Amino acid sequence: MKQSIHVVVWNEYRHERRSEEIAKIYPKGIHGAIADYLRTLPGMNVRTATLDEPEHGLTEEVLAETDVLIWWGHMAHGEVSDTVVDRVQASVLNGMGLIVLHSAHFSKIFKRLMGTTCNLKWREANERERLWVVDPSHPIAEGLGEYIEIPHAEMYGERFDIPQPDQLVFISWFQGGEVFRSGCCFYRGRGKIFYFRPGHETIPIYHQPDVLRVIGNAVRWAALPHGPTPTFGNVKPLEEF
Amino acid sequence: MKQSIHVVVWNEYRHERRSEEIAKIYPKGIHGAIADYLRTLPGMNVRTATLDEPEHGLTEEVLAETDVLIWWGHMAHGEVSDTVVDRVQASVLNGMGLIVLHSAHFSKIFKRLMGTTCNLKWREANERERLWVVDPSHPIAEGLGEYIEIPHAEMYGERFDIPQPDQLVFISWFQGGEVFRSGCCFYRGRGKIFYFRPGHETIPIYHQPDVLRVIGNAVRWAALPHGPTPTFGNVKPLEEF
Amino acid sequence: MKQSIHVVVWNEYRHERRSEEIAKIYPKGIHGAIADYLRTLPGMNVRTATLDEPEHGLTEEVLAETDVLIWWGHMAHGEVSDTVVDRVQASVLNGMGLIVLHSAHFSKIFKRLMGTTCNLKWREANERERLWVVDPSHPIAEGLGEYIEIPHAEMYGERFDIPQPDQLVFISWFQGGEVFRSGCCFYRGRGKIFYFRPGHETIPIYHQPDVLRVIGNAVRWAALPHGPTPTFGNVKPLEEF
Amino acid sequence: MKQSIHVVVWNEYRHERRSEEIAKIYPKGIHGAIADYLRTLPGMNVRTATLDEPEHGLTEEVLAETDVLIWWGHMAHGEVSDTVVDRVQASVLNGMGLIVLHSAHFSKIFKRLMGTTCNLKWREANERERLWVVDPSHPIAEGLGEYIEIPHAEMYGERFDIPQPDQLVFISWFQGGEVFRSGCCFYRGRGKIFYFRPGHETIPIYHQPDVLRVIGNAVRWAALPHGPTPTFGNVKPLEEF
Repeated sequence: MKQSIHVVVWNEYRHERRSEEIAKIYPKGIHGAIADYLRTLPGMNVRTATLDEPEHGLTEEVLAETDVLIWWGHMAHGEVSDTVVDRVQASVLNGMGLIVLHSAHFSKIFKRLMGTTCNLKWREANERERLWVVDPSHPIAEGLGEYIEIPHAEMYGERFDIPQPDQLVFISWFQGGEVFRSGCCFYRGRGKIFYFRPGHETIPIYHQPDVLRVIGNAVRWAALPHGPTPTFGNVKPLEEF
Repeated sequence: MKQSIHVVVWNEYRHERRSEEIAKIYPKGIHGAIADYLRTLPGMNVRTATLDEPEHGLTEEVLAETDVLIWWGHMAHGEVSDTVVDRVQASVLNGMGLIVLHSAHFSKIFKRLMGTTCNLKWREANERERLWVVDPSHPIAEGLGEYIEIPHAEMYGERFDIPQPDQLVFISWFQGGEVFRSGCCFYRGRGKIFYFRPGHETIPIYHQPDVLRVIGNAVRWAALPHGPTPTFGNVKPLEEF
Repeated sequence: MKQSIHVVVWNEYRHERRSEEIAKIYPKGIHGAIADYLRTLPGMNVRTATLDEPEHGLTEEVLAETDVLIWWGHMAHGEVSDTVVDRVQASVLNGMGLIVLHSAHFSKIFKRLMGTTCNLKWREANERERLWVVDPSHPIAEGLGEYIEIPHAEMYGERFDIPQPDQLVFISWFQGGEVFRSGCCFYRGRGKIFYFRPGHETIPIYHQPDVLRVIGNAVRWAALPHGPTPTFGNVKPLEEF
Repeated sequence: MKQSIHVVVWNEYRHERRSEEIAKIYPKGIHGAIADYLRTLPGMNVRTATLDEPEHGLTEEVLAETDVLIWWGHMAHGEVSDTVVDRVQASVLNGMGLIVLHSAHFSKIFKRLMGTTCNLKWREANERERLWVVDPSHPIAEGLGEYIEIPHAEMYGERFDIPQPDQLVFISWFQGGEVFRSGCCFYRGRGKIFYFRPGHETIPIYHQPDVLRVIGNAVRWAALPHGPTPTFGNVKPLEEF
């Protein structure tokens, strides 16, 4: 086991700087709230990065030292440079974990890795959400009850246009009548990807303990060891014939 | 493609004979209602079988001619003989399709094929259910809208203790706050298995057109061709060494 | 069931026009050989399209009428226009089947839909390949023996950098010591995708009956009905709260 | 993370006591060889149990303290009591990891958990086996090269009659022409199951470092935390209606 997990919490960080109301909920930004929580866990080495930094804070050097990258974005997906998307995709395929939160379902990097539109239904009505654990064998669900209840949530509803997850951990129930695959694990290359639905800029969801717990569990899961680096291309036979 | 699909609709057939109220809803039994629907479809050769027939109506001869077996049971799972369960399991592994309805989640044959308890939460409160299509690539969802609404349903809730389905077609929303994986495909041996949640002896769900449509689609899917019969045991090398 | 399946066999069609040796094996092109076979099957309406036609022969009109698209390419993947790739991806997500053959693992459309590099090991040594059926429940394996033997094949070896297939039908054994996931099903959006490994421009593999049979089976599978067209975006609640 | 993983290595332990040749290879039994290796790893608390002990050494008390159970059996599967099989199944569904080795594919507990025959092809010809890593994202493949080579192995060939693994980590190549899904992960209930093919009583495979490494990795993976204990049965609504 690794002594320390290097996490980067990435945030678009626009809403919090433009709206006083949002800044009150997340005074250090969404990235700051998540990073503050992760720093309370043993063995986490946490830094943050944001869209408006040079190379969005995700240089080759930063990514080379990152075990797990957490991604939150919403209003500025289109401003993320394709060069950085290429770089993050290559890092994931080479073993970096990636945790994609809420509205980042529409981020360039998630769409790139899924190969689908990642589209969904949505509604802002502050309704109740209940995330049911449907895979109790999964380490991401450690320490939870049978469901997480979020009193006021933006709704995301099926059909969620993603490949069938390799493991489906949570399914959400919404007061308005919809369901959603809310916690989805994907394996791509040597990397582990977790999409987690909860979170919105106008709601203090990233201060809710069980939501934070899932993010912490997901970091540990995504940082698990991986197998060998594959080699590709023209090869000689291993057997004579 | 086969000219004709041979279907057997199996029913425990106890509730309908013991309760006048239930007999009014299903005067020919649940098997009769489903069989009557399937007979309206082209290319279906439909028969029925019930628990109290000799060998439960599922002799070697009957199974040998069956492409798809539909199974409904509830109060008498324990009376199904292990010999017949062995026989049905062997038939499924050899390519017969199996459609498991509602309370048959607790049938011996389903538990045998899943290897788990198949337990779940339940409630009889005549609440609203909405089955969302989460895999629109699947032929079982052909001809439906984005969801099926059932006005009055018994609730089944997660955790549903089954292996992760090979394909998950429907997720149910319930008025009382639960979700359920309601349409689950499994491949076992050469056989195809579909678990479909809706249905209850006191509710006319098997007269609802979109529920029947799913059952008909599932029969066609489960009757799709399969691959070669595997051989097992001691074999000679195919290559010299 | 549909009365007729509309298939387009797409081929880069460069090797066959540049090399006399290759032209002898595939005088009508690889697309011609596959199309000729499919035309012998009942209910197939077959046309072809190639890279050097306007819009590569894949106009909006052509795709709108296509149930299943078969894709072969090798030396000119980079010449396929991104507009056409966008169009084919949208068609697949909207329900068109896609069968990706051999060296088309590196086609833009396959990489786009997978989200990974789709890289692999390879060797041209005319060695023996044996494709074992590992999922005998699958309609794509209908009518085959327990394996397909290809006397002289280009080798493709693991690690094959794709997402875990939703269903894995074939695994290849190679004389030189490698294995490969040779028949892989993926569900994306409303569409069904099948990657099938065999085939090379200098080897008459697309004249081999069991290889052609798999392609025919795959066309029928990829043309199976699909579920409803999802709607996306902002929605009103279905339940009052 | 847990401070210590409690492992029980279970062995039928008959071959080693009946054959001098086998006893020379495994003087402490196969269980002893594996336990000795695991004891060299940090954080492992290892004990053994065998068929001829009372309750096969797997009392309720022992299982209650076990995080991961390793199972080897071959000639005496039928002597394992159904009571103990029931108990082990319940423990797995409640979160105990289970690692099933080689000929234990035919053990009662593995067949019970799979729901299929678990049959396969086999040959004793001391041929070469190469286990290719096909999922380099998996922690079970940590520290390996791209394949494990076993100089002299009993062959196991497809069709292996199991459900499609939830994750497929290794595929074996055999000199005689067959392939095999050699490293298969399954999630059942709260438990994690790993089937690993290598190993035979007459071959010193469990002294080979990379084979042992996989077993150690698998123990750590199977001991990962799991989610909540589900409750089942009749429940009250969470929402008013």
